[in-house]
Amino acid sequence: MADQLREYCGLFGIHNHPNAARNVFLGLYALQHRGQEGAGIVSADGVRTYGHHGMGLVSQIYNPESLGKLHGSLAIGHNRYSTTGQPTLTNIQPLLVDCKIGKMALAHNGNLVNALEKRKEMEQDGSIFATTMDSEVILHLIARSQEPRVEDMIVDAVRQVNGAYSLLLMTKDRLMGARDPLGLRPLCVGRLGESVILTSESCALDIIGAEYVRDVKPGELVVVDERGITSIQAEESTAQAKCIFEFIYFSRPDSIVFGENVDKVRRKLGVVLARNHPVSAEVVIAVPDSSNTSSLGFAQESGIPFELGLIRNHYVGRTFIQPEQSLRDGDVRVKFNPVRGILNRKRVVVVDDSIVRGSTMKKLVRMLRKTGVKEVHLRICSPPIRFPCFYGIDMPERRELIASFQSVGEIQEYLNVDSLEYLSMEDLRSVVDDPENFCYACFNGQYQVPLSTPLRKAVFEETAA
Amino acid sequence: MADQLREYCGLFGIHNHPNAARNVFLGLYALQHRGQEGAGIVSADGVRTYGHHGMGLVSQIYNPESLGKLHGSLAIGHNRYSTTGQPTLTNIQPLLVDCKIGKMALAHNGNLVNALEKRKEMEQDGSIFATTMDSEVILHLIARSQEPRVEDMIVDAVRQVNGAYSLLLMTKDRLMGARDPLGLRPLCVGRLGESVILTSESCALDIIGAEYVRDVKPGELVVVDERGITSIQAEESTAQAKCIFEFIYFSRPDSIVFGENVDKVRRKLGVVLARNHPVSAEVVIAVPDSSNTSSLGFAQESGIPFELGLIRNHYVGRTFIQPEQSLRDGDVRVKFNPVRGILNRKRVVVVDDSIVRGSTMKKLVRMLRKTGVKEVHLRICSPPIRFPCFYGIDMPERRELIASFQSVGEIQEYLNVDSLEYLSMEDLRSVVDDPENFCYACFNGQYQVPLSTPLRKAVFEETAA
Amino acid sequence: MADQLREYCGLFGIHNHPNAARNVFLGLYALQHRGQEGAGIVSADGVRTYGHHGMGLVSQIYNPESLGKLHGSLAIGHNRYSTTGQPTLTNIQPLLVDCKIGKMALAHNGNLVNALEKRKEMEQDGSIFATTMDSEVILHLIARSQEPRVEDMIVDAVRQVNGAYSLLLMTKDRLMGARDPLGLRPLCVGRLGESVILTSESCALDIIGAEYVRDVKPGELVVVDERGITSIQAEESTAQAKCIFEFIYFSRPDSIVFGENVDKVRRKLGVVLARNHPVSAEVVIAVPDSSNTSSLGFAQESGIPFELGLIRNHYVGRTFIQPEQSLRDGDVRVKFNPVRGILNRKRVVVVDDSIVRGSTMKKLVRMLRKTGVKEVHLRICSPPIRFPCFYGIDMPERRELIASFQSVGEIQEYLNVDSLEYLSMEDLRSVVDDPENFCYACFNGQYQVPLSTPLRKAVFEETAA
Amino acid sequence: MADQLREYCGLFGIHNHPNAARNVFLGLYALQHRGQEGAGIVSADGVRTYGHHGMGLVSQIYNPESLGKLHGSLAIGHNRYSTTGQPTLTNIQPLLVDCKIGKMALAHNGNLVNALEKRKEMEQDGSIFATTMDSEVILHLIARSQEPRVEDMIVDAVRQVNGAYSLLLMTKDRLMGARDPLGLRPLCVGRLGESVILTSESCALDIIGAEYVRDVKPGELVVVDERGITSIQAEESTAQAKCIFEFIYFSRPDSIVFGENVDKVRRKLGVVLARNHPVSAEVVIAVPDSSNTSSLGFAQESGIPFELGLIRNHYVGRTFIQPEQSLRDGDVRVKFNPVRGILNRKRVVVVDDSIVRGSTMKKLVRMLRKTGVKEVHLRICSPPIRFPCFYGIDMPERRELIASFQSVGEIQEYLNVDSLEYLSMEDLRSVVDDPENFCYACFNGQYQVPLSTPLRKAVFEETAA
Repeated sequence: MADQLREYCGLFGIHNHPNAARNVFLGLYALQHRGQEGAGIVSADGVRTYGHHGMGLVSQIYNPESLGKLHGSLAIGHNRYSTTGQPTLTNIQPLLVDCKIGKMALAHNGNLVNALEKRKEMEQDGSIFATTMDSEVILHLIARSQEPRVEDMIVDAVRQVNGAYSLLLMTKDRLMGARDPLGLRPLCVGRLGESVILTSESCALDIIGAEYVRDVKPGELVVVDERGITSIQAEESTAQAKCIFEFIYFSRPDSIVFGENVDKVRRKLGVVLARNHPVSAEVVIAVPDSSNTSSLGFAQESGIPFELGLIRNHYVGRTFIQPEQSLRDGDVRVKFNPVRGILNRKRVVVVDDSIVRGSTMKKLVRMLRKTGVKEVHLRICSPPIRFPCFYGIDMPERRELIASFQSVGEIQEYLNVDSLEYLSMEDLRSVVDDPENFCYACFNGQYQVPLSTPLRKAVFEETAA
Repeated sequence: MADQLREYCGLFGIHNHPNAARNVFLGLYALQHRGQEGAGIVSADGVRTYGHHGMGLVSQIYNPESLGKLHGSLAIGHNRYSTTGQPTLTNIQPLLVDCKIGKMALAHNGNLVNALEKRKEMEQDGSIFATTMDSEVILHLIARSQEPRVEDMIVDAVRQVNGAYSLLLMTKDRLMGARDPLGLRPLCVGRLGESVILTSESCALDIIGAEYVRDVKPGELVVVDERGITSIQAEESTAQAKCIFEFIYFSRPDSIVFGENVDKVRRKLGVVLARNHPVSAEVVIAVPDSSNTSSLGFAQESGIPFELGLIRNHYVGRTFIQPEQSLRDGDVRVKFNPVRGILNRKRVVVVDDSIVRGSTMKKLVRMLRKTGVKEVHLRICSPPIRFPCFYGIDMPERRELIASFQSVGEIQEYLNVDSLEYLSMEDLRSVVDDPENFCYACFNGQYQVPLSTPLRKAVFEETAA
Repeated sequence: MADQLREYCGLFGIHNHPNAARNVFLGLYALQHRGQEGAGIVSADGVRTYGHHGMGLVSQIYNPESLGKLHGSLAIGHNRYSTTGQPTLTNIQPLLVDCKIGKMALAHNGNLVNALEKRKEMEQDGSIFATTMDSEVILHLIARSQEPRVEDMIVDAVRQVNGAYSLLLMTKDRLMGARDPLGLRPLCVGRLGESVILTSESCALDIIGAEYVRDVKPGELVVVDERGITSIQAEESTAQAKCIFEFIYFSRPDSIVFGENVDKVRRKLGVVLARNHPVSAEVVIAVPDSSNTSSLGFAQESGIPFELGLIRNHYVGRTFIQPEQSLRDGDVRVKFNPVRGILNRKRVVVVDDSIVRGSTMKKLVRMLRKTGVKEVHLRICSPPIRFPCFYGIDMPERRELIASFQSVGEIQEYLNVDSLEYLSMEDLRSVVDDPENFCYACFNGQYQVPLSTPLRKAVFEETAA
Repeated sequence: MADQLREYCGLFGIHNHPNAARNVFLGLYALQHRGQEGAGIVSADGVRTYGHHGMGLVSQIYNPESLGKLHGSLAIGHNRYSTTGQPTLTNIQPLLVDCKIGKMALAHNGNLVNALEKRKEMEQDGSIFATTMDSEVILHLIARSQEPRVEDMIVDAVRQVNGAYSLLLMTKDRLMGARDPLGLRPLCVGRLGESVILTSESCALDIIGAEYVRDVKPGELVVVDERGITSIQAEESTAQAKCIFEFIYFSRPDSIVFGENVDKVRRKLGVVLARNHPVSAEVVIAVPDSSNTSSLGFAQESGIPFELGLIRNHYVGRTFIQPEQSLRDGDVRVKFNPVRGILNRKRVVVVDDSIVRGSTMKKLVRMLRKTGVKEVHLRICSPPIRFPCFYGIDMPERRELIASFQSVGEIQEYLNVDSLEYLSMEDLRSVVDDPENFCYACFNGQYQVPLSTPLRKAVFEETAA
């Protein structure tokens, strides 16, 4: 039920394609799950730049006419759910500015932990900020760099920011991509004929028929221009901290992310969960669609049949209208409908990716019980979420995370389920090949980018109070 | 791949609820799969009527403000995909008119085979028609009836029309529902406290927490007013011809339709298919989402594991932008993405509900082969579609239906699959309890409502030519 | 200050022009003053008809794309301010229906006094009504006529309705126009090369470079088709009752209406007013723009200089936001601003076309006094309005017309003006050549189309009570 | 016919009013003639700032809901027609940024002649620019100032820019206004109870019932905060160069601008023109509405009667649809219609404010001649426009100005008028009290702010070539 968490963006850039903007559109369309609040595309034809941004879904923002005005063979795009900055048109990326190197556009996935500090410094030094997004800080740092070459200006800038960032940068004739030294957010390189693509997930390569080449490496700056791809190690990367939640929830199962098939990893989550937290039941169901793959893994390992016990309404848009107050599970009912023939009088395993606040799961359980489910056994494909993320996932505050103040037993009681089991940290680490290279801060509070003192206090002392 | 077929509507009406329009909105939202072209709601407060119609999805058309203007405790609504009438705002139902009984609104699911003839008759007799929809004919017939009571006027009218019709009718204080004597299209009765609901599928009852009571019977007129529910047998029903395609494709699996759980019937389609058309393979996949349930049935019966081999992009809206021409499977790729880890180098059973033109399936197979699938075994949960439907399903003309001019062997070759098996008529009949009560005209050409001579000629002589 | 009165439409139809719809657009644009609520255009290419309607100003509703879809060399259009029917898209004319003669479109300027009665009759006889407009009655009467020829069907229909009507009618290849036997509303014939135009005012001919030919005669039906113009005397016209308010306020001064130059008649209003109600003053000002012409007449006759003492804001749109309550003349101030240099310390004659409720004029006077005007002498180019109009002008009810319950002396006191003079009936009649052929019912209550008993009671007994 | 010239903005700011944004809306509405391309309002409540910008007319951009979100007692607004920067939402003012003094908003009327140079300097020094407007330079200069107090930072900034600027500036609790030392563009101070207003023309004070206090002086910075109004002489003003075109065309006649009644000055233009360029004619007409006032002056001085010979269509919006090509005066005909009764067979004086390209006037004359005018005597209320403006008026390039390459005799022949007379420079100077304090550069090329070398070359050498 991690749809209470929102990642804030999908990135897609392409160099040297006659229909650059159209391909960015398709890429953003494939990455729509990474941000539904708004989107933007900036293109360039070697001389001028063109832009079109809007609020809403990619398919609502663009049409053949608006795409037709985005000339040129170079373009970058961004799907946004905001973590910093209000949801206004001004805050939709890519940001496009003029500076001493001419036009420059930026799209950013992640969250900087020292953005405010850098912003204040630069304001004191005479800078003005046009948006409320942390990403604007990077543009200022680039523009202020004393280095003579654009790529060195960028190296200069990214060395000054801390936190999570996968970046796309564009001048009037170059496409560049960078990842933070811990590699918190994904970014990969693809190829389609003579065109080079940089994007968040490989499913965006598939939609245009491009092939996956490799990941941008942590700390790497990739420069794509008429001479081809140049790799610069912008920052030293001594340790990695890839976001494990990309496998648990965010990425599409048909993507390659961090060099691995998401489907394969996600399925293992279910398999390990079944192995270590078995239960006697008649049916395994997923909370669609995020836990479909792990549920199949659970079913196969446990031998309990997988069934489509919940039907998801995909025409969601905005479900602003709720059923009557009296229907206490109303907002869940708008999204899911139980299939009585499958669930009635059954002992059911419900597999979900995670529990955030717990309130939605409570309603789901209530709805299942009304449908006649005899026993509900909840299996969660992650450890309890106890800490907020500061690297680009929009989470509630710590005090709203149910596992930060309740034990598993208390949560089980609150949710009114017959059994509740989370994946252990150990089990979670077992599903990837290089567990030491991942970030688990939302589970264990071990933040690999040091938090500022006020943040640290807010996180670690608030629940003590 | 029956998304080339479109049913043209979902119906939802409610009587005696303080938030009538809001509940109709939720019902239409649950029935969105039955029509995405436009929607309308008409409400009444016992004195005046109120209406709001629009093009697009229900969640795009309505907001709290527009729903707030739909006063009263009585309302009906309609989701439309047009079969007759152009897609303009004028043609969005419910139709609302004045006649001798005052305000009257109508929403119609189905298709009348003698509408044009009746329309011409009434035009000759001085009537004017404001829309191009066949449904308007019913309103005229009601208004012209000499019967003194409203319910008898309706009986009078429905006896004069032939074809498929599930109807909702509304005056300023009464809700009425009717089904044609063959019962071609579904309509059921639900209850929520003191409120009575009439709707196409029971999933629309679930979303507001209402319970399913029973189906409106073929030939029955149900009248709901302050005295409760009155049943009138408007037309003699000597035989039934329920649309078997509601089970194969149209209805949601979580619905009760024609008194049966769709999920249960749909699963049997897969089971029987596996039993009678076995194949040696490593993986069973569905073409999501319409064949998910039957694929599970196939997997369970065959013992071949069910996998999520195709990921569907649910943010579809309008996929007006296609990938490059060179990508010959482009329009399928926008909708589905194959999961390479699951499919590569595998022998795969693909289960789908039906084949209409065949062109989309051909592209899907091409995409699967590019992904590395070793063998593609296609299993179809219905017999070959050889004849168009005249009862409310929007189908291509007969000459576009691939099975009308090609043998199964030829289709297999065209699609480039390693094996292709359709469900037999006998097997199809075996999945329902009362096979004699269904319409199979699209498979066998046995139309239970006689076709007009020109229609008959068009259908049965065109391919001979 | 007759902007509290609204006429409900402008008509423009053209036959045999390659860009028919574009010319209708321009004609409606020139007639925008006759209705700003919405507009519609229906065109025909001899086989099919096309339509586009919308709410708002003509220039907001149409663009090259929407006009480009209105194919054909025949088109009619309508600007609307509603007198009957709610302001919804359904109620925007031209109405377009199917009937026994095929497609038929209607646009109507005027108001039928027996529409409700006819509607009820036809409802009893089985007709349904799709709109709430009186104009729909005419379509029904045409469709029901037993006459064999279209033109005779129309004659049949117009003979059955009473009241005010200038009509445009269109089939797929013919343009027709009709005027009621009293000739209450204007309609004229124009010509542009081989094209024939029917429209409300000649200013709509000027904009496309067409020439004025003649008025459609009271009771005449004009039929325009490939054989040219045919005239049929549909109804006997024994007396005329042309609306005198077209000269006082509605028509543009640059138009020919009822065969006369509006400018010439309107100027005479001011001249006669000055001659018979002289005053000693330093400045004559108009309430722009409706009384500009008559004010010039007043100034020339009186010898008092004409000045632009009030500046009108033409970007009005919707003045939904009023200045602070404390500014008691706020809503007038949004529309007009006084020029202090002209008005301060002066004795001023204010010329206006009419007084309806009096409330707006009261605010205008208050604003003028604040500006420093020493004396305000109000001169009105019409007699006191004491009776509502039932022939197509949207007026307040009788009890809201200030002159229906207050004497001129009382009104002068209420408005706080130093003198107030209205034009006398005799003077009004003197400005036109054939005064016996005009309707003065709003001044003297002599309705030339008999009112129904309830209407008559409502008008003549309400203030007695 | 100066509607080919466009000024680029109207300014309105108010301090200490409970409905600040609503009053800004009304002020912008009264100033709509100064810019119809877009508008913006920024407000502040002492803590936060709020903004709403849009394209189009003020009344289209704002409604009670959007205004309701603009909280606080302080607000500034801007009507825009762009001179620099493309017409996109990003380029709509007021600009709102963060800098070391917190939130800061700017609205600018005028044009800076050294903006590009300053911009390049600051880009080299590490600044980034988010818009393409010259106004953004001022914000950067303020943010970079080393002065400790906000007002001194602004003084610092305005001393570095050259050209025309009337500015409104706003922090979260202060309203400030500044004018360039030559006073090229207007800005005045008004008062409404305890509220202080800064705005372009006094007509915007009238609409909210505020009184005109005085002009902001050339070179003055006015600071309005809780202590009242503070005046700072930011820049020395040794000479003035007020734009004479504000009197000839831009300002509303009901405004006080540069301390004088526009009406009074504009009327003198007509009087002097009549005195020094008399003609024998029967009628004087204006090209409405800009030359109404001067035409009256001409008529009064000459004794020739003033008539409303051209009717202007005020519903203009976008006149994208032109009449047929064959109608060579089509685009003029859409805007104006001649009144034949007044003009036919007459000798007519046409008074207009100026001639820019001459092409529109040529069409107007052609239309008048078609209407039957016997003689056309054109009288222009300004000298020939020979030079472009660099101080905020959007003019065609020099080579498009007809008077830059044709003599008066040649222009008379081109326009096909019987006589043509312009106002002389001497006469123009005679209509104001302090002629030495005005800018006449568009007539005589004497630019009072030195032009950059490339500009100077472009202006003075292009026609020589």
